Amino acid sequence: MNKYKSKDEYLTDLQKQCFLPDGFSSGVASLEFQPEEKLGDELYQMNLSALVLEQETPVFGGVFTRNRFPGAPVIIGREMLELEAVRGVIVNNRISNVCAPDGIHSSREIAQSVSDCFGGGAFFPSSTGIIGWKLPVSEMIRTMPELKQNLQNGSILPMAEGIMTTDRFPKVRSVTVGEGRITGIVKGAGMIEPNMATMLVFLCTDLTISRNEIRQHLKNSVDRTFNRISVDSDQSTSDTALIFSSCKKAPVDSARFESALLEVCAGLAEDVVRNGEGTSHVIEVQVNQAPDTALAVGVGKAVVNSPLVKAAVYGNDPNVGRLIMAIGKYLDSAEVDLNPESVGIEIGREVVYRNGSFELDTEKENRLFAYLQNCAFNPELKGYPESDKNVKIMISLGIGTSSAKVLGSDLSYEYVRENADYRT
Amino acid sequence: MNKYKSKDEYLTDLQKQCFLPDGFSSGVASLEFQPEEKLGDELYQMNLSALVLEQETPVFGGVFTRNRFPGAPVIIGREMLELEAVRGVIVNNRISNVCAPDGIHSSREIAQSVSDCFGGGAFFPSSTGIIGWKLPVSEMIRTMPELKQNLQNGSILPMAEGIMTTDRFPKVRSVTVGEGRITGIVKGAGMIEPNMATMLVFLCTDLTISRNEIRQHLKNSVDRTFNRISVDSDQSTSDTALIFSSCKKAPVDSARFESALLEVCAGLAEDVVRNGEGTSHVIEVQVNQAPDTALAVGVGKAVVNSPLVKAAVYGNDPNVGRLIMAIGKYLDSAEVDLNPESVGIEIGREVVYRNGSFELDTEKENRLFAYLQNCAFNPELKGYPESDKNVKIMISLGIGTSSAKVLGSDLSYEYVRENADYRT
Repeated sequence: MNKYKSKDEYLTDLQKQCFLPDGFSSGVASLEFQPEEKLGDELYQMNLSALVLEQETPVFGGVFTRNRFPGAPVIIGREMLELEAVRGVIVNNRISNVCAPDGIHSSREIAQSVSDCFGGGAFFPSSTGIIGWKLPVSEMIRTMPELKQNLQNGSILPMAEGIMTTDRFPKVRSVTVGEGRITGIVKGAGMIEPNMATMLVFLCTDLTISRNEIRQHLKNSVDRTFNRISVDSDQSTSDTALIFSSCKKAPVDSARFESALLEVCAGLAEDVVRNGEGTSHVIEVQVNQAPDTALAVGVGKAVVNSPLVKAAVYGNDPNVGRLIMAIGKYLDSAEVDLNPESVGIEIGREVVYRNGSFELDTEKENRLFAYLQNCAFNPELKGYPESDKNVKIMISLGIGTSSAKVLGSDLSYEYVRENADYRT
Repeated sequence: MNKYKSKDEYLTDLQKQCFLPDGFSSGVASLEFQPEEKLGDELYQMNLSALVLEQETPVFGGVFTRNRFPGAPVIIGREMLELEAVRGVIVNNRISNVCAPDGIHSSREIAQSVSDCFGGGAFFPSSTGIIGWKLPVSEMIRTMPELKQNLQNGSILPMAEGIMTTDRFPKVRSVTVGEGRITGIVKGAGMIEPNMATMLVFLCTDLTISRNEIRQHLKNSVDRTFNRISVDSDQSTSDTALIFSSCKKAPVDSARFESALLEVCAGLAEDVVRNGEGTSHVIEVQVNQAPDTALAVGVGKAVVNSPLVKAAVYGNDPNVGRLIMAIGKYLDSAEVDLNPESVGIEIGREVVYRNGSFELDTEKENRLFAYLQNCAFNPELKGYPESDKNVKIMISLGIGTSSAKVLGSDLSYEYVRENADYRT
């Protein structure tokens, strides 16, 4: 991610990432509807987006939220992993279809309708937006022909924009590898339409690969990227990552595929944090010398999820006390014994804690304050990323050899404002 | 807790709670110091407060933070639980003495000095405030004679005020039982001097009781009260609860003692949430039909710690979607399987979720909005509690017979402001 000065500059650069792999097309159509749940006759806008394979493919996979109140598309999507082949995914924004009356039936109707309109095959349904409301099924079905007309196989950018809700900017990453490419889009900003922290990831490739292998790679990449970010510690009822291959190009070896997919996912994951609602600093916590990766991830997440650490970073306050508080609290909950003397902490390459004591003085605090200020960006919606900087925190636990990197957002007025507004 | 219109009205009512049990005195003295760690010659104020028994007592107990980076007073306090008898506690605000160079030596010097000045016996040291800075030991020792002069055995109110940092108002609770009483004070507001979420609880009684019994009662009461509140989910490096008995009055039976201590602790715990930094709603989550108490507490804490739930309550938004998100996320982390159809949720006695679906309509949402508005109070520092209302959320899990009540704060602009300001 570079630093941009305007939306045009960002989109021009982003176009280089937007090429669809061979065998895929995508498109978006808009519709208006009047929700049953709202009195009055105000009309709401919805985008219907599709990622469509020329032909059904057996090479696909998905991972879903582990929240125990999953949305209807998640319930259906889990079942669809057993299918022999699928054709793509149909996505709507505005309404997430979670715990709505007859929600599963509505999602099945949409998926059937897109299949009928696009010439057969199974489609994953996917929804994001207000929860509790019912999908406007008949309006969505009426829009299918227009969606089909809008399909094209050049760029995934219209779909990356179509699935946005409160996202600040569209997010696309692509890597060429061998004769083919892996392209992915993501939506998610910590909050949707102020109701739900939903992240949807759609990945597509033309590289030939087996179904088992692509599923293993998807799981590994999600574990190492999307599962190591946190905007606000809340876990959506709808989080979904889907991958499809058209198998139109020659295979590459497994390690190259894995590293390319990891690069796409890592880029998208960082984009999600940088465009998080109200985010004005991206916090990057590198945890080293942990006994295992899970503990390293846990310590990193404890830091980026601590409201006190997050608020301090927002205020450009290099507050080391809150860092040790967050680390010490997590180590208690994980029942890990450690000697505080073994721990070292750096912020922006400055040592701030070592040998059981803080190493701080007024001048160092002033330098750290300036460092945090320099990493800050304006949390207002601008339509493009203004900064490419992360606040780098390094924690050495001194009790092992494992490590992990975790990304998170600070806690700003803007976050509270966006999430406290009463739904209108 | 009642609702008050002015600080005077509150203090007048509070006086009824402030009687020290027989055999105790307390007092406060102030001092000025210039921190080593700050350039310039600005002077800082500190209060030195003491709770002193006429005679050493073997009947005392303490529970401390489980954070793995404990402050010096916590390290010393844990050791002191083995002593045959103690005389009381000496508390300073402004500097918390956590991870400061030579911190343990400093706390020991203070404790020795108060013992020398007050005629012997061991004193628990206790500190709250900025972390990392060194205690101004010689200034504190010089203040001991004045502190001794200020000791009185009538009211604990001066000490309840002396230990405050960013607390909005002093917090005292007292219950008479049999011939004696149990009186307690607490400080803690989610953040101290913007550095650390510290809670200090000091309890004293004149009821005769054994050391083992008072320790068991203290542990039980803390588990059921202070361990079930959360202002911002962060766990201090200094949290401490101490209890002392002078054994000057006849014993009461164990159940009466326990229920009186529980009442004092429950009142103080609610006070801490109500005076939490930036709190504008107290959220009370009652979890029923859980398989065990730990799970009921876990679900309740997941709700009051969710930034999305907290921000919604701040905005008077009856956002049921965020409630099920928080519950579902916790049930995943606790590896509890449950059928979403078994769960019921009420807000302010209105059913909002039942049989696997939301039960919401525009009119009900408007009623809930009005209910949340009615529970709100101004998060500014006023010096007294303006409201006695809690936002009541009831969650029935439908998978057991255990229950628990958890209290928490909402998430306001004011919280971010107080915690984002760079230390000055």
